[in-house]
Amino acid sequence: MAYVSVALAADPDRLLPADPGTRQIARGLLALVEKLPIVSVHGHIDIDILAEDRPFTDAASLLVTPDHYVTRLLHAGGVPMERLRPGPGVTAREVWREFCAGWPRFAGTASGYWLAGELFHVLGVAEDPSPDNADELFDHIASALARPEFRPLALFRRFGVEVLATTDDPLDPLDAHRAVRPQARVLPTYRPDRYLNAFDPAWTGHVDRLIAEAGGGAAGYAGYLSALAGRREHFISAGAVSADHGVRRPASARLDRRDAAALFDRLRRGMPNPGDPAMFEAHMLYEMARMSVDDGLVMTVHPGIYRSHHGPTLERFGPDTGHDIPVPTSFTAGLQPLLNDFGTAHGFHLVLFTTDETVFSRELAPLAGFYPSVYLGAPWWFLDAPWAIRRFREAVTETAGFSRSSGFIDDTRGFCSIPARHDAARRVEAGVLARLVAERRITEDQAADIVVDLIDAAPRRVFKL
Amino acid sequence: MAYVSVALAADPDRLLPADPGTRQIARGLLALVEKLPIVSVHGHIDIDILAEDRPFTDAASLLVTPDHYVTRLLHAGGVPMERLRPGPGVTAREVWREFCAGWPRFAGTASGYWLAGELFHVLGVAEDPSPDNADELFDHIASALARPEFRPLALFRRFGVEVLATTDDPLDPLDAHRAVRPQARVLPTYRPDRYLNAFDPAWTGHVDRLIAEAGGGAAGYAGYLSALAGRREHFISAGAVSADHGVRRPASARLDRRDAAALFDRLRRGMPNPGDPAMFEAHMLYEMARMSVDDGLVMTVHPGIYRSHHGPTLERFGPDTGHDIPVPTSFTAGLQPLLNDFGTAHGFHLVLFTTDETVFSRELAPLAGFYPSVYLGAPWWFLDAPWAIRRFREAVTETAGFSRSSGFIDDTRGFCSIPARHDAARRVEAGVLARLVAERRITEDQAADIVVDLIDAAPRRVFKL
Amino acid sequence: MAYVSVALAADPDRLLPADPGTRQIARGLLALVEKLPIVSVHGHIDIDILAEDRPFTDAASLLVTPDHYVTRLLHAGGVPMERLRPGPGVTAREVWREFCAGWPRFAGTASGYWLAGELFHVLGVAEDPSPDNADELFDHIASALARPEFRPLALFRRFGVEVLATTDDPLDPLDAHRAVRPQARVLPTYRPDRYLNAFDPAWTGHVDRLIAEAGGGAAGYAGYLSALAGRREHFISAGAVSADHGVRRPASARLDRRDAAALFDRLRRGMPNPGDPAMFEAHMLYEMARMSVDDGLVMTVHPGIYRSHHGPTLERFGPDTGHDIPVPTSFTAGLQPLLNDFGTAHGFHLVLFTTDETVFSRELAPLAGFYPSVYLGAPWWFLDAPWAIRRFREAVTETAGFSRSSGFIDDTRGFCSIPARHDAARRVEAGVLARLVAERRITEDQAADIVVDLIDAAPRRVFKL
Repeated sequence: MAYVSVALAADPDRLLPADPGTRQIARGLLALVEKLPIVSVHGHIDIDILAEDRPFTDAASLLVTPDHYVTRLLHAGGVPMERLRPGPGVTAREVWREFCAGWPRFAGTASGYWLAGELFHVLGVAEDPSPDNADELFDHIASALARPEFRPLALFRRFGVEVLATTDDPLDPLDAHRAVRPQARVLPTYRPDRYLNAFDPAWTGHVDRLIAEAGGGAAGYAGYLSALAGRREHFISAGAVSADHGVRRPASARLDRRDAAALFDRLRRGMPNPGDPAMFEAHMLYEMARMSVDDGLVMTVHPGIYRSHHGPTLERFGPDTGHDIPVPTSFTAGLQPLLNDFGTAHGFHLVLFTTDETVFSRELAPLAGFYPSVYLGAPWWFLDAPWAIRRFREAVTETAGFSRSSGFIDDTRGFCSIPARHDAARRVEAGVLARLVAERRITEDQAADIVVDLIDAAPRRVFKL
Repeated sequence: MAYVSVALAADPDRLLPADPGTRQIARGLLALVEKLPIVSVHGHIDIDILAEDRPFTDAASLLVTPDHYVTRLLHAGGVPMERLRPGPGVTAREVWREFCAGWPRFAGTASGYWLAGELFHVLGVAEDPSPDNADELFDHIASALARPEFRPLALFRRFGVEVLATTDDPLDPLDAHRAVRPQARVLPTYRPDRYLNAFDPAWTGHVDRLIAEAGGGAAGYAGYLSALAGRREHFISAGAVSADHGVRRPASARLDRRDAAALFDRLRRGMPNPGDPAMFEAHMLYEMARMSVDDGLVMTVHPGIYRSHHGPTLERFGPDTGHDIPVPTSFTAGLQPLLNDFGTAHGFHLVLFTTDETVFSRELAPLAGFYPSVYLGAPWWFLDAPWAIRRFREAVTETAGFSRSSGFIDDTRGFCSIPARHDAARRVEAGVLARLVAERRITEDQAADIVVDLIDAAPRRVFKL
Repeated sequence: MAYVSVALAADPDRLLPADPGTRQIARGLLALVEKLPIVSVHGHIDIDILAEDRPFTDAASLLVTPDHYVTRLLHAGGVPMERLRPGPGVTAREVWREFCAGWPRFAGTASGYWLAGELFHVLGVAEDPSPDNADELFDHIASALARPEFRPLALFRRFGVEVLATTDDPLDPLDAHRAVRPQARVLPTYRPDRYLNAFDPAWTGHVDRLIAEAGGGAAGYAGYLSALAGRREHFISAGAVSADHGVRRPASARLDRRDAAALFDRLRRGMPNPGDPAMFEAHMLYEMARMSVDDGLVMTVHPGIYRSHHGPTLERFGPDTGHDIPVPTSFTAGLQPLLNDFGTAHGFHLVLFTTDETVFSRELAPLAGFYPSVYLGAPWWFLDAPWAIRRFREAVTETAGFSRSSGFIDDTRGFCSIPARHDAARRVEAGVLARLVAERRITEDQAADIVVDLIDAAPRRVFKL
């Protein structure tokens, strides 16, 4: 059989277990969820794509440049970063040629799976990208994108997206979300990192602006807290269901009001004591939990990333350019103050993510297996990949079962990758459950209930939709 | 086929590998060990259950309340802790109803496997617990428990338990063990944690009592050491074969006598220097190893747990209520002083346990692959689960082989779960060995020898039975 | 079928996946690489074995004593170290008897796989070693080794070794390498650890000698750097392609010249500040990277081992005697200074190894997935084992693909184990790729390209052969 690798995106057994008996069970489970609508409760799609609904322009701007999962691997293969973004001296077509030449590098990767799905199912490309067909594919895709059925809102509907959450700055007016609402259910997500991260030299400026714009006239720490809380209300009124937190370390600390204000003032004056930025991060994670208990926003936490590891690339090309690298993470001691006070609070939902697999069985499952507030975030970032998701399930299930899961979260920056990402997750969940059935640990009826719950009900329940 | 999930407890292929060829090999290996007597060398069964041999009273008190593996997952599902223990305002029947309503949460968990075994094989329940049949099952179990064949000693014999070890306070007179001896071989285990843990504010009181009761007239550090050693002798005379140590960190330190006594005195006077409690823990782990070298008690070490993570639950319901959470653990540097001095000591057996899977291949297998004293403890606590045991074997075997294993250790608090726990371990060991045979790494004859050794001979050999 | 376990070394399906469909795919992939020449770019074979080409003398000196993978497991089984090396009072035959008695301990281990290959394929032994046949096997092997076709160079050719790298002291004149060159392509590798490791009390003496012999007349830090660089040139002129670095921790630091010289002087005078040895290790790792950028030697880094854990064994039997134990490792923060400055330098190749599996998905794959200089070292030491290699591939591939691999590196100390080690790696790579094909993630054509690249092209490309 002469395979074309992108055509594997249409293979009905893709990502299912190799053992024939287990695969047969998995097929049955997959059939129950394959066509369900997509509930995407956390991601990084730019709201303006949908609000403006302008046609995508070309293959490079659609598939390559905005997706640091893609550019990083081409960069590792020796392509300079400036060749991966259309700009002075580099056309979109040239960027696309780099991608086509680098296509073999994606074999076996999660990105390769998503890209094949995007090319084959979304864009109708039925041959593997290569230097030989790069121009032809570029033209084919450009002409497709010019058609109305390829405009963002049309794709949104075609993908079967029922709900999509974006990630937004607390000072965002959210007008675009309101404008798009009649046509697509897109929810903003409150992401206050820049106002909480006193490690960043720009923090003081961000805080000044926050207090000025949203402090309600109050100054200092009081105005700061008031602004943060007030903008949460603004987000809630615009449909937000969650607040997202990217922290260096998942530490939490409870300071009394006076100490917290003094800490805030030292940092804001640029005269911190050693340890102050870390203490402030820990204290504010605690405060954010307190606010979530008060206002009901689901709290999601993504810790343990060394951001912008390569200084020269950061300087020239900015953040989120493929060199954020995970570090060892532990939740148990760091989250204790927060969970001690809020872990059993009524209605509090805390979804924990990690890029460090060691916490799967060691900490996440035991925490989610006791605290009613703690949910297992889907494997995140580098771990949002078929084998990694399988390892996640195999590591947490025996301790925490299935009921403590958040449901799949795509966290995507690539609009057209949404269907392929959810497709991958559904297939892997079906495969894990099929293994449990094949090993006679659960019945097929149980597996059927669980797979539907995981894919459809869990994200709605955990994210209060 | 209309499956009832508890009936999977009788499926002959449960927990065996899904691949038909591998499963066939596993069946043959399992047949060699499935019916062997149970040698349970470490666990937490209350000796009074056997000494008094009183009937169990009801399903909740038997299966739910005493088992923090069970209560924690119901608590995570939103059931308040006070609804999980019979007491003022809550009947055993109501606790049982909570359990039946929460039964689906155990699908795929290790606890679910044990519970199904207990319900189906021990108690004759052939339908899944649910809100609809909760009362009926409660009554059925109550009437069964009233029958003589359900009294503890009868079950002990029915389960095929040849040896059972309990875990006991050094000051326990061990009269109950002596009393039960004619009817059941139950061995005490020396567990001195509370006398070694100077982090605990109650430590001073415990130490005072230890010295007063067992110091032989000596005072201070001399009396303390003498009491600890003397009680070990008392345990040995009552049949004990091991001493068990739950420590925060697996650190060890050799202090000279004078420094150790000064450290002890500072801690006892409540005037410690920073770091004193940790240094004392490390020093006493070293001292316990020295005593094991002297008196032959097998030393077992269980480190790396953040005990009683949720303060409010500890205050209301006490310790061991489901919120002990693992932390990152490393043995290599911490155990070096101890292993440097005793690692090759004649007759010294040190069995290491972990809830942090990262040490499986990184540290445990290399340590057990060199030191004749070091044995690989079976996966413990959250890792005592079919997939986790498989990961354990897959991680350690290539470095340490099979000969360095302690054999399976159930560590149970649920009397009726003993058979299901050993059954699970036997099935997983058969499956791992079958994989090695299927991959042509060992012969079936070798696998047969190994599985019998692991299940039957290893625990006897390592625990000096 | 009456199996003899060593005969499994000839089973055509050994180490291939158990699932019949996946195995069939793997067989096809294996056929493409099974007979390719061996490119061994890093290992510890003593050059004198080949330069002198003297016959090996006996089974114990060939298979047991020099291989700490083998002696450590016999030692763990209770054989004192002095019984594992021919010497006063212990004959080679007696050492061999210990090995034969301990043979069952190797079932399922990586060493067991290699030993079976050596016994069966190299030495023609077709029965399992045991106390009963120990003497007979010893005599059989001795008579084989006396024949010309068992001399080292003859075996080198028979094994199909195209390139072999040794590991050498920077002051080695490399005359033996030059002498052997006409008959066997053996490359030296620059390993400067002893001159960089200021934790070692012998460091000062090593440095004195280095400066005296190779400093070109310069003294102090200038002479030291000059000597290190000069000897690199010497190695390059003798065919070296890489420089190898065993460090405690993978930390790097950029010091300015004056601070570095002052640090060097404090250490050399034996008057270090606290932290000086660690800072010097970090600084010199940075300097070695700088030199690699300058002279093109591939830089390999092997961190995270607690060397010579058991003091008494070190004192009596020296280093490399089986008690080097891994510790937790993290690369992300420690390598940042080095990668910030050299991570995208043209032609720089940095191959990272680990014995801590936690970094596979967390750090190694993300780093190699961005930096064009970073390559994934094959699983190393305790992880150079079939299941561990499989876990490595499964952990890194979804993030980094296959193109960032260094190719297999045997790191061996056992000359006759070279073919079995490469055989194991080829089989495991075929199996992993077959799994990807079976799960419809890549096509068979892609898998065929990848397996040939991994086995044959990658090590040549990454090590600049």
